[in-house]
Amino acid sequence: MNDKRLRGWGITVGEMAPGPLNKITDVPGVTVGHTTLDDEFHKTGVTVVIPAPGNLFTDKMTAASFVINGFGKTCGTVQIDELGTLETPIALTGTLDVGRIADALVTYTIRQCEAEGVECLSVNPVVGETNDAVLNRSPDRPMGYPELEAAIRSASADFDEGDVGAGKGTHCLGVKGGIGSASRTFAVDGKDYTLGALVQTNFGRGEDLTINGFAAGRLIRRLTDEARKPEDKGSCMIIIATDLPLSELQLRRVLRHAVVGLARTGSFVGHGSGDVVLGFTTANRHRHDDGALRTVQSVNDDLIDLAFRACAESVEEAVLNSLCCADRVTGHNGRELVSLPGLGEFMPAIIDAMRASGL
Amino acid sequence: MNDKRLRGWGITVGEMAPGPLNKITDVPGVTVGHTTLDDEFHKTGVTVVIPAPGNLFTDKMTAASFVINGFGKTCGTVQIDELGTLETPIALTGTLDVGRIADALVTYTIRQCEAEGVECLSVNPVVGETNDAVLNRSPDRPMGYPELEAAIRSASADFDEGDVGAGKGTHCLGVKGGIGSASRTFAVDGKDYTLGALVQTNFGRGEDLTINGFAAGRLIRRLTDEARKPEDKGSCMIIIATDLPLSELQLRRVLRHAVVGLARTGSFVGHGSGDVVLGFTTANRHRHDDGALRTVQSVNDDLIDLAFRACAESVEEAVLNSLCCADRVTGHNGRELVSLPGLGEFMPAIIDAMRASGL
Amino acid sequence: MNDKRLRGWGITVGEMAPGPLNKITDVPGVTVGHTTLDDEFHKTGVTVVIPAPGNLFTDKMTAASFVINGFGKTCGTVQIDELGTLETPIALTGTLDVGRIADALVTYTIRQCEAEGVECLSVNPVVGETNDAVLNRSPDRPMGYPELEAAIRSASADFDEGDVGAGKGTHCLGVKGGIGSASRTFAVDGKDYTLGALVQTNFGRGEDLTINGFAAGRLIRRLTDEARKPEDKGSCMIIIATDLPLSELQLRRVLRHAVVGLARTGSFVGHGSGDVVLGFTTANRHRHDDGALRTVQSVNDDLIDLAFRACAESVEEAVLNSLCCADRVTGHNGRELVSLPGLGEFMPAIIDAMRASGL
Amino acid sequence: MNDKRLRGWGITVGEMAPGPLNKITDVPGVTVGHTTLDDEFHKTGVTVVIPAPGNLFTDKMTAASFVINGFGKTCGTVQIDELGTLETPIALTGTLDVGRIADALVTYTIRQCEAEGVECLSVNPVVGETNDAVLNRSPDRPMGYPELEAAIRSASADFDEGDVGAGKGTHCLGVKGGIGSASRTFAVDGKDYTLGALVQTNFGRGEDLTINGFAAGRLIRRLTDEARKPEDKGSCMIIIATDLPLSELQLRRVLRHAVVGLARTGSFVGHGSGDVVLGFTTANRHRHDDGALRTVQSVNDDLIDLAFRACAESVEEAVLNSLCCADRVTGHNGRELVSLPGLGEFMPAIIDAMRASGL
Repeated sequence: MNDKRLRGWGITVGEMAPGPLNKITDVPGVTVGHTTLDDEFHKTGVTVVIPAPGNLFTDKMTAASFVINGFGKTCGTVQIDELGTLETPIALTGTLDVGRIADALVTYTIRQCEAEGVECLSVNPVVGETNDAVLNRSPDRPMGYPELEAAIRSASADFDEGDVGAGKGTHCLGVKGGIGSASRTFAVDGKDYTLGALVQTNFGRGEDLTINGFAAGRLIRRLTDEARKPEDKGSCMIIIATDLPLSELQLRRVLRHAVVGLARTGSFVGHGSGDVVLGFTTANRHRHDDGALRTVQSVNDDLIDLAFRACAESVEEAVLNSLCCADRVTGHNGRELVSLPGLGEFMPAIIDAMRASGL
Repeated sequence: MNDKRLRGWGITVGEMAPGPLNKITDVPGVTVGHTTLDDEFHKTGVTVVIPAPGNLFTDKMTAASFVINGFGKTCGTVQIDELGTLETPIALTGTLDVGRIADALVTYTIRQCEAEGVECLSVNPVVGETNDAVLNRSPDRPMGYPELEAAIRSASADFDEGDVGAGKGTHCLGVKGGIGSASRTFAVDGKDYTLGALVQTNFGRGEDLTINGFAAGRLIRRLTDEARKPEDKGSCMIIIATDLPLSELQLRRVLRHAVVGLARTGSFVGHGSGDVVLGFTTANRHRHDDGALRTVQSVNDDLIDLAFRACAESVEEAVLNSLCCADRVTGHNGRELVSLPGLGEFMPAIIDAMRASGL
Repeated sequence: MNDKRLRGWGITVGEMAPGPLNKITDVPGVTVGHTTLDDEFHKTGVTVVIPAPGNLFTDKMTAASFVINGFGKTCGTVQIDELGTLETPIALTGTLDVGRIADALVTYTIRQCEAEGVECLSVNPVVGETNDAVLNRSPDRPMGYPELEAAIRSASADFDEGDVGAGKGTHCLGVKGGIGSASRTFAVDGKDYTLGALVQTNFGRGEDLTINGFAAGRLIRRLTDEARKPEDKGSCMIIIATDLPLSELQLRRVLRHAVVGLARTGSFVGHGSGDVVLGFTTANRHRHDDGALRTVQSVNDDLIDLAFRACAESVEEAVLNSLCCADRVTGHNGRELVSLPGLGEFMPAIIDAMRASGL
Repeated sequence: MNDKRLRGWGITVGEMAPGPLNKITDVPGVTVGHTTLDDEFHKTGVTVVIPAPGNLFTDKMTAASFVINGFGKTCGTVQIDELGTLETPIALTGTLDVGRIADALVTYTIRQCEAEGVECLSVNPVVGETNDAVLNRSPDRPMGYPELEAAIRSASADFDEGDVGAGKGTHCLGVKGGIGSASRTFAVDGKDYTLGALVQTNFGRGEDLTINGFAAGRLIRRLTDEARKPEDKGSCMIIIATDLPLSELQLRRVLRHAVVGLARTGSFVGHGSGDVVLGFTTANRHRHDDGALRTVQSVNDDLIDLAFRACAESVEEAVLNSLCCADRVTGHNGRELVSLPGLGEFMPAIIDAMRASGL
């Protein structure tokens, strides 16, 4: 595991056990890929979460969405909310590139279907975004089909975090944000299940940063002038995956717990923060050749707190991983975002303070 | 079958076949009971829809709600929307009696559980209402536990319609409203399923009355001065039952089609009309002794139009049955509501007009 | 006024008076434009509803959305639902072109802002769609910025209806569908207000066609074999505009009444029909230079039935206008859709039947 | 100010300034009253939040609701969500007494209207609840009109917190819960506004207790065996009041931030926790004699973060105040709940630990 991540500092969020990679890809079949654009003018990219190998259009996921704060441009939620299905990978990018990446997902799906001899005359592309304009000359909109395809082709289980893909140009809680991930495992009826989160972090003020129930941001102000952000602007996209069998209604309830994790890292869900959760379970797929009655499984509600807590813990740790893994980035306008690990003495000071308090 | 009902006039709504009774009770296990209060001052009552024999608290229904227009006092929807379950009978009554009947449902459930040795420290009573104050001295609030219990005890498959139970004091589309019901059957994968509706009708203006795609209300104005109602006030409560296996999300989608049936009878869903749909499927029950994973069935979305159309048709016919079965009622204030069949030459005139038009 | 429209046949829907054009553009400031693509392979286009002249990004509309049935790809609703604002024109197109037209709206807004020296780093493009693949080789996705810009440039108050713009390739209730519009006026406190609807019709079966409370579709089966559509597939996009002062909550309530108009034309809101309503009021604009407290107006709820009924009537008539104004169209695959007026003796027969019935 | 409250321990939550009482009643006009039942078998009561003096039925509040987790029996939300109005005081009580207190609110409103010569034939009582069965023999349902009326009559600005009223029988985060409150003030355009919260706390596990960004619950386990609660069961009712002018849509957005405060105290929003937020603004009242057009004010969205943060901070501190003010209570079954201040060395130890960490 990457030493730069939160657990590399000896800090353990929550009480549940992570999966082997402690990433969303611990959910069997899920892979993640990035395309990163890092040139003089652009700090942006595409990140894709691919729920399973094969054709998602003919073999859909059970899915749900939950809008924490809808000041955002995520597309595809109308159909997800109606049918409870996901039929493309989920792509993340910068705000102004959503239309282009949505169109690229349509191209991708049509080509995939053509290759299999399946007609595709209607498909619901799902694209989330945060605004990376602080570092990126976003009106250029440099993302498109080649970038999406490269991200999909590069997808793997052990993907990079930090200032990569759709996280290249983001900032979060006073420092460089980016892509982060974490996972939790739990047993139901003797069988192990996994829930994982991937986040694109672009929200919050430095002084609100909270690390594992410790108000670390209050120390930032004393230690550095660098990590400041005047407003709780920007957004956080949150992707949740699990292999636990859930109904659409249950899945939506699980997604709602992302805000608990988010709040624990210091977010106040600011007006300008378009915080949107998209999620799927790899159980209960909807196949084009399903019969007249589908037989599905759903966890007993008496046990659903396992998934609720796994969601909150995974999101909390994923956000912190996005900060730990990101490096300092300088934008097209000369603006530089410091990184959390780059704050020199800061993380050791926090860990000392935590120890002093007996936590 | 009751000759007073719409089909007794030779009028067939829609294209799907009704069940044997053409009532919500065609769904196996469902029964309906009324308590009617008809004295000098009061024209009101309680109507209960009992989804199944036995203890609903320990053996819950999969349920959903859909609010067409929320100017109403229905209680119990918060939990239905969250969990997708129903754990009491659904009771209908007058607006001001909702609290009393909700409390009576709590009493009923506690007693039923006590008799079975089950502890019940929390239960979600579900009560719908429309405002019968036009005929009923409603601030007296005469409904309570005895009336609820009597309604439950009287429940049967072949229940009365018209000015009975919670429909005793209502008016609708210019004439006496009340309780009405209808059902539709359809085959999925070679097996027959039923969807039924029960309505408490208390909405609409006489001139908007539409009978089976025929703007009958325009004739009312020429034939009678009696059937007038200045505003589209009042409400319509709609209960939907089915034995088709549905997920909670699918069930909610089905309920939404009640508004199609309502609109076809002449409702404009007026501001003052608290139109609320509550529904359940008798498939996929949630039992207290369910294991860690529940196995449930849900119809393939490609076939769900059967349930959508059955819902729209059942609601349309149920509304019209409520009018056909109601008798003239005089309220505590001397106000008299005419009945549709009591409009003498009106129904024959409508049928002549329909024939003339070749429908 | 176009003689081809419903009122040209002597048929008057509802009881409220239309505006001078009986179109959505009767709402002061609203214009509509089309780009139509009609070649060997493509029957598609773009239709834009422009709520007001000038820059919508710096001078936003109060807006709302209502999803009747969410099996559709409309984008932009997340932010509309959160903030109650609209900051671009509303564009309609074919299903697979949504991403491209969303991106074109971003280009349009950035350019408009640049010309005015306003920075635009985030904008929420709003695009609705229905699936015109029955006539159009839709995977080619021929729509883009030039088509959007041409539609915007062509916008006027007295725009075309029928098989134009985003309605070029649609079919509806057994015949050629397309773009239709209607409006209603009403007085509040001595001042006149207007509400108008524009629809992109692509739904329903021929036998369900209902014209002004008259089940005309039942005659279709006797008169013609041409007008048949096996399933209630496709969708209906509905745009509502008004100058009545409304809060966001009230506006959303108004939009909900579109389903009443839709149901009266014969829609059963089929599973496959992504019926989405988008609407705005030109009152209560959100300006970039608004002060700390905005003063807005909203109609008294006691009068809101005027807007509810205006919405239902406008949508009903707009759907019928879309059918009356459309001509026969032959698709890339040789499939021909008959038009309602092209059904020779059909409309006169319906009018005879209506007269015979005394309506 | 009560020394027992959190600030009496020298702990300041958040960065915004509280009002003079640091209670919901800092919002001008708001009062709170309790009736507490404390006998051998019962630990329960009623708490009322009265938004303003006078008749709320004829002079309604602008209101909203937000369901964090709907496993609860709150009644009245359907109409609040539709109309954005509140026409009774908000009452809180135990789960099984909701119907009785709803009926009591109807009685109260009818009597109040009768005294003023106003006809009241329909009113929407709003009642929230949490389940106090851990200490209270709740199936007895001892609450009713006398208890409601006494609570209303006792209402004042400087009301009690802790184990009083509807908080008498609750437990929270391992210790005795109850009623708590807090407020925040902020300036908009040179004028001061207040937002306050009142909570009925009945949720969470001891080990999750977080005090002002400090994971205090981890110390509980070392210091005491008493404060344990196996599951995150129970619920939290949250009432938000403000005098900031807000639209209904804005108010609902504000309410949503209650979950941020809740999460910061250690809630994971467990399955069994029916967490519901009800709120109102005393600006923009709806009066029975309003004219055809209402003129209302709403804060510019660019400033709404003030209210968002005020909501999160108030809820966080209100929860902690409910714990600080509650005393040890023994239930009908002999079960004893320890109190946070009764945990002897615990609070001083936490404060030492906080100091050691430099916070």
